[in-house]
Amino acid sequence: MLPRYAKAEMRQIWSMENQYRTWLDVEIAIDEAWAKRGLIPTEDLKAIQEHADFDLNRIQEIEAQTHHDVVAFTRAVSETLGDEKKWIHYGVTSTDVVDTANGLRLKQANTIIKEDLQALHQLLKEQALQYKETVMIGRTHGVHAEPTSWGFKLARWYDEITRQIRRFDEASAAVEVGQISGAVGTFANISPEVEEYVCHKLGLGVQPITSQVLPRDLHADYMATIALIGSSLESFATEIRSLQRTEIREVQEFFDKKQKGSSAMPHKRNPIGCENICGLSRVLRGYVIPSYEDIALWHERDISHSSVERILFPDATSLLDYMLKRFTNILRKLEVYPERMKANMDHTGGLIYSQRVLLKLIDQGLSREAAYDMVQPLTARAWDEGLSFEKLVHDSAEIGQYLTKEELDDAFDYRYHLRRIDQVYKRLGIE
Amino acid sequence: MLPRYAKAEMRQIWSMENQYRTWLDVEIAIDEAWAKRGLIPTEDLKAIQEHADFDLNRIQEIEAQTHHDVVAFTRAVSETLGDEKKWIHYGVTSTDVVDTANGLRLKQANTIIKEDLQALHQLLKEQALQYKETVMIGRTHGVHAEPTSWGFKLARWYDEITRQIRRFDEASAAVEVGQISGAVGTFANISPEVEEYVCHKLGLGVQPITSQVLPRDLHADYMATIALIGSSLESFATEIRSLQRTEIREVQEFFDKKQKGSSAMPHKRNPIGCENICGLSRVLRGYVIPSYEDIALWHERDISHSSVERILFPDATSLLDYMLKRFTNILRKLEVYPERMKANMDHTGGLIYSQRVLLKLIDQGLSREAAYDMVQPLTARAWDEGLSFEKLVHDSAEIGQYLTKEELDDAFDYRYHLRRIDQVYKRLGIE
Ligand SMILES: Nc1ncnc2c1ncn2[C@@H]1O[C@H](COP(=O)(O)O)[C@@H](O)[C@H]1O
Ligand SMILES: Nc1ncnc2c1ncn2[C@@H]1O[C@H](COP(=O)(O)O)[C@@H](O)[C@H]1O
Repeated sequence: MLPRYAKAEMRQIWSMENQYRTWLDVEIAIDEAWAKRGLIPTEDLKAIQEHADFDLNRIQEIEAQTHHDVVAFTRAVSETLGDEKKWIHYGVTSTDVVDTANGLRLKQANTIIKEDLQALHQLLKEQALQYKETVMIGRTHGVHAEPTSWGFKLARWYDEITRQIRRFDEASAAVEVGQISGAVGTFANISPEVEEYVCHKLGLGVQPITSQVLPRDLHADYMATIALIGSSLESFATEIRSLQRTEIREVQEFFDKKQKGSSAMPHKRNPIGCENICGLSRVLRGYVIPSYEDIALWHERDISHSSVERILFPDATSLLDYMLKRFTNILRKLEVYPERMKANMDHTGGLIYSQRVLLKLIDQGLSREAAYDMVQPLTARAWDEGLSFEKLVHDSAEIGQYLTKEELDDAFDYRYHLRRIDQVYKRLGIE
Repeated sequence: MLPRYAKAEMRQIWSMENQYRTWLDVEIAIDEAWAKRGLIPTEDLKAIQEHADFDLNRIQEIEAQTHHDVVAFTRAVSETLGDEKKWIHYGVTSTDVVDTANGLRLKQANTIIKEDLQALHQLLKEQALQYKETVMIGRTHGVHAEPTSWGFKLARWYDEITRQIRRFDEASAAVEVGQISGAVGTFANISPEVEEYVCHKLGLGVQPITSQVLPRDLHADYMATIALIGSSLESFATEIRSLQRTEIREVQEFFDKKQKGSSAMPHKRNPIGCENICGLSRVLRGYVIPSYEDIALWHERDISHSSVERILFPDATSLLDYMLKRFTNILRKLEVYPERMKANMDHTGGLIYSQRVLLKLIDQGLSREAAYDMVQPLTARAWDEGLSFEKLVHDSAEIGQYLTKEELDDAFDYRYHLRRIDQVYKRLGIE
């Protein structure tokens, strides 16, 4: 977890301190459940609730000997207690604690990511409205197609984030679960009621059946969803990078007064924020494969997934948080140039309206083939000789037989292309 | 970079301190080159060599304003100098410094990894010799096939690491390069001789042609090689995990006197080291995709690869170093149980020698079909009724017509299967 790409809140969640804090929360909840079932005397429980604590250095010291981090932890906790220490970790196995506490930390991280997603979603809605009529050329294959608007693009992104929110809600809920089910999941030394109490107390779901560990398809799905959201951000960021190309320059990442674009070239204003998002999205995709490979554990468990998750849970959640916040910020401050958009749209001298001319001719009774053969040669001349297609059409006697000047002017009016936007916005609830 | 999986040396190499230290090494070498070419006066160069320095906090402060880490660095360095500061970063662009310094840090990391590989290679050779005759059953599809030896397996691993050393030598040399070629690689404001001087001075190769940046296929190949080595370790670790299964238990990871295998089950001795290697190998494989995606940068550069590399270079090299050291240690201390190996080999009552009986019958003049039909029913009875195949063969009057008792005893002698090992060892230079 590189500090450069991790916000303080996420760093705290994934700190060793918070790992052990959540382990202790689980251990205490387990003892509460035992006390409710009459096993642990009330005084002992009280002593545990009040005094159980740990010291990071002491845990490290013991782990160097035991080579087992949970045993090191429970021993360190025991040292902070009197005779009641015998109840710590009673009847449970390490993973009962580790997996349940992971559920807790993931829930903490998910809460932040959900806020991030909402903030981006809200901004996209606002800007989709703000730029609804900000007309610009739509491009397919990098080549001018027909007009659209900047708001329309943002509305597509809004819809994409709607989907991502739904997916993240599902995938994140599935990992916000616990399990206290013993060495092979059969509850031999502990009753399912203890598990239910603990999970309920900690605000986690109960996984209905497990091996020694939670099934890892849950976490694989979660990591895939994180990578999916990252890839949406990459898609948006790539759009901005494309539109900031010098020849296009329809939008530009905000450039701070004191910012330096290049150490050597003072003129440079580069989309470095969006490029950063694209890079980090690749990193997130790289986390999907190991997470999927973690599913096929042996029999009732092996611990090969553990090292993977120690690295990937913190890195993936904090990167996604960073990316969401950074991209939302880029979008909020994005400089949008409607004049350039219009100028670029006119770049091909009206070629982008060729379909409309075609359709109008067909409306006048021509066959599609005849109309196509009438229009295409003029588009070819426009491309090859750098002439204005609009002018060629107006000058064409052949076309003049079917369409008046007014009808032709109308064919070259971009507003025609935006007239259905409201209807689409309505579908999305952008109003 | 999780401290848990990073040795101190690697942490130092990838520290911010060392990042800036290597940047400074490059900047000073550039000025030396300029001085040699008569641009920078000797006193100025001397002042730079003696006083140029940086303060980590000051760099951070400036970066918060400039949003450009190299500009922040050069300004911080300038603050430690007098008028000669004007020569810092003269005629170069940021990436000239960043990419060249990365070459330096990668070289430092590679030196450690090469030592790790050599240590493992050496140990494999020693143990291949030591266990050359330690016979055990070979298994295909998890099912007993024919005898082999523990040393023979180790010799295969030795050969695999021989290949990996060769691959790593090549892939690592390719990233131990520098480039000082200006904004689009055309040396507009700097001469190729400066580049050559700097790279030579720093012990790096010269990349013959670049854009603003080194081509990223070099780094992708390097990361793929790291993942490939990780996957070899995973293959070895998986073998050990398999052989430590309770029903097999032919080898066992060293278990420290004070070690705890499980917090709940005192009897447990688990192959947690090898499981850890398997997990981390997944993580390394996850780094391949982002590295490959980094190749397709736009035009003369975009900076999307930068965030990826900030995370992946440190993580991948330090993980591989950790894995190599840990696996070598596991192997050095591995407990090998030749008695269990022999006992398991006899598990099927001699079934594993069925091919030899078959061949001996053919040697006596029987057709392959006739011999097969003579032997297979006995293997079926051995499987189905749990009888000793060796006894069934000896008792068979039919087979007795062709083979004497001595000839049959010889068919069930495992030494026959080991007699070609020396020849193979010779190929590998294990002597
Ligand atoms: N069954 C288990 N449940 C939880 N932790 C375990 C179990 N077995 C071993 N451990 C410890 O989990 C840690 C795994 O380390 P790592 O591979 O670095 O994630 C080691 O400290 C092991 O001793
Ligand atoms: N052409 C360039 N060469 C090197 N560094 C650059 C260049 N352009 C921008 N940078 C800086 O490189 C850093 C990229 O940050 P990151 O995406 O976090 O790796 C930022 O500080 C940029 O300001």
